[in-house]
Amino acid sequence: MKLRELGEFGLIARVERAARRQRLSAQVVVGIGDDAAVLRPRAGEDIVVSTDAMVEGVHFRWRTESPRTVGRRALVANLSDLAAMGARPLGFTWALAAPPDLAVSTVDGLMAGLFHEARTYGCPLVGGNVAASAQTSLTLTVLGGVPRGRALRRRGARSGDRVCVTGVFGTAALEVARAECGEGRVRRVATPRLVAGRALAALPGIGACIDVSDGIEADLGHLLEGKKLVPELDIDSIPRPPRFAARCAQVGLAEADLLLRGGEVYELLFTVRPSGPSRALLERRLGVAVAEIGKLRAGGSRRVAGAKRRASPKGFSHFRGD
Amino acid sequence: MKLRELGEFGLIARVERAARRQRLSAQVVVGIGDDAAVLRPRAGEDIVVSTDAMVEGVHFRWRTESPRTVGRRALVANLSDLAAMGARPLGFTWALAAPPDLAVSTVDGLMAGLFHEARTYGCPLVGGNVAASAQTSLTLTVLGGVPRGRALRRRGARSGDRVCVTGVFGTAALEVARAECGEGRVRRVATPRLVAGRALAALPGIGACIDVSDGIEADLGHLLEGKKLVPELDIDSIPRPPRFAARCAQVGLAEADLLLRGGEVYELLFTVRPSGPSRALLERRLGVAVAEIGKLRAGGSRRVAGAKRRASPKGFSHFRGD
Repeated sequence: MKLRELGEFGLIARVERAARRQRLSAQVVVGIGDDAAVLRPRAGEDIVVSTDAMVEGVHFRWRTESPRTVGRRALVANLSDLAAMGARPLGFTWALAAPPDLAVSTVDGLMAGLFHEARTYGCPLVGGNVAASAQTSLTLTVLGGVPRGRALRRRGARSGDRVCVTGVFGTAALEVARAECGEGRVRRVATPRLVAGRALAALPGIGACIDVSDGIEADLGHLLEGKKLVPELDIDSIPRPPRFAARCAQVGLAEADLLLRGGEVYELLFTVRPSGPSRALLERRLGVAVAEIGKLRAGGSRRVAGAKRRASPKGFSHFRGD
Repeated sequence: MKLRELGEFGLIARVERAARRQRLSAQVVVGIGDDAAVLRPRAGEDIVVSTDAMVEGVHFRWRTESPRTVGRRALVANLSDLAAMGARPLGFTWALAAPPDLAVSTVDGLMAGLFHEARTYGCPLVGGNVAASAQTSLTLTVLGGVPRGRALRRRGARSGDRVCVTGVFGTAALEVARAECGEGRVRRVATPRLVAGRALAALPGIGACIDVSDGIEADLGHLLEGKKLVPELDIDSIPRPPRFAARCAQVGLAEADLLLRGGEVYELLFTVRPSGPSRALLERRLGVAVAEIGKLRAGGSRRVAGAKRRASPKGFSHFRGD
């Protein structure tokens, strides 16, 4: 069956039925189906909000991944923004734009993926919108709560800070590269570092924090925007999966490229004051592997040890002939 | 200049520059430019959130309205959802999808419209997303605050309730109908009834509330969903502009159709208990004209005095061959 046959009201009813099967905590006062949703933060919490879109042909292709994976990735990308602010999830809204000839089963797959992650991370669907469009796109807005004044920020890096990351790099980029060469589909969905982000927000001695969505190089660049700081990174210290060099060589890709420029990793990249928590303490509190991959020094330009400099803009850019 | 020439990062920088010119109140702790925005509700407030999309060719056409009007209408539609919940605005996010060959001046026009309404109603832009797409679309998510447990709801209508509306009907529908016949452009932008909504949420004796986005008939239908209630409406009591009948006749449209089925009016439609506030008290507290247009009676089907019944689904529906 196509969306055309189901119709707008049929589709809304279908999403609402699925949403009503969610186990809602007391933080959802009004869920899907009213003019707006009503969420109840804890006393003294600030509200964190982030909006992100995934567009067919730009951020995903039906050829290389299943609707369920697309749905999962969409919510994870947004939850990762909450993690980078140190927030806990409250709920999310979903705007779906889709062509009338899209299969209803595809929408069901997207929903299955969204609800899977929603359940896993306690972030229920509380509202949304459907509209006809030439391309399929999912625009998600996640809301979270963070203790008042404790949100982690992108600004805040200083000279002398240690540069740290959670988790392992390179896997996602390698899988995407292989899928685009027709070798397998994208199946791996990252883990948003929500627990680690909340723990980080509670620690003293943290400088800046961001989630790695565009790649270490580009996202570290965001932390240094407008600052006279030079990152001194040691690429060898970036955690990677076993036999990574060999697997990169197999598909003719440069290891450093995937480690520094691979996006959608959704690990946290943060800076720690020289007097801040040790790596061991960070690992205990964050509950995940933490690596120190470099330091920030005062100065005017950037240096990445062992990486070839690129003059071109970093990462993917919309609008330029895609 | 086209978006293709400006590029994604150029466009983001342009939106951020404009957003930074906003006068932000203390409720915005972190505005645009971080992983997420941080908003600070008042003590004891619930958070109200609503997402709405406007798609080119579906919700607007460049032929019949200016980018500025499209931007204004987009934010007003969302603010109206806050009004219908009795909430005050905290801020909004904006996801823009646009083709690479869209003129940058068109985006500037959209922004001018959004920022105009944002300023007027104290609802600053705090975040968003840009992506390339075949069609232009704006997906807005507004956040608001409402005193704990006081949000107005769609459910809550009861037998005996008086059906009330704010403001005047028919103008928007007539203008849209004329624009679609090539007579003028759509210029009028509705007023979201934020002050009235907040006043309504503070009054005892209110049943249900919704904003009229699809038309009185369809939106009253939403209030009665799943309930055994019959609305007895007196079409003659629906406030309309002077000489409305004659102006409808000029363009060959039925007056009742425009009054009952005209959308995007963004007046509040609400029910009041028999013992609830009088029309005069409502007008004083809400600060806007209020009319009683009918009553709700127990029963199984609907009756609209003076209106021809339609068997077909009400209002505009996406996906069905548009």
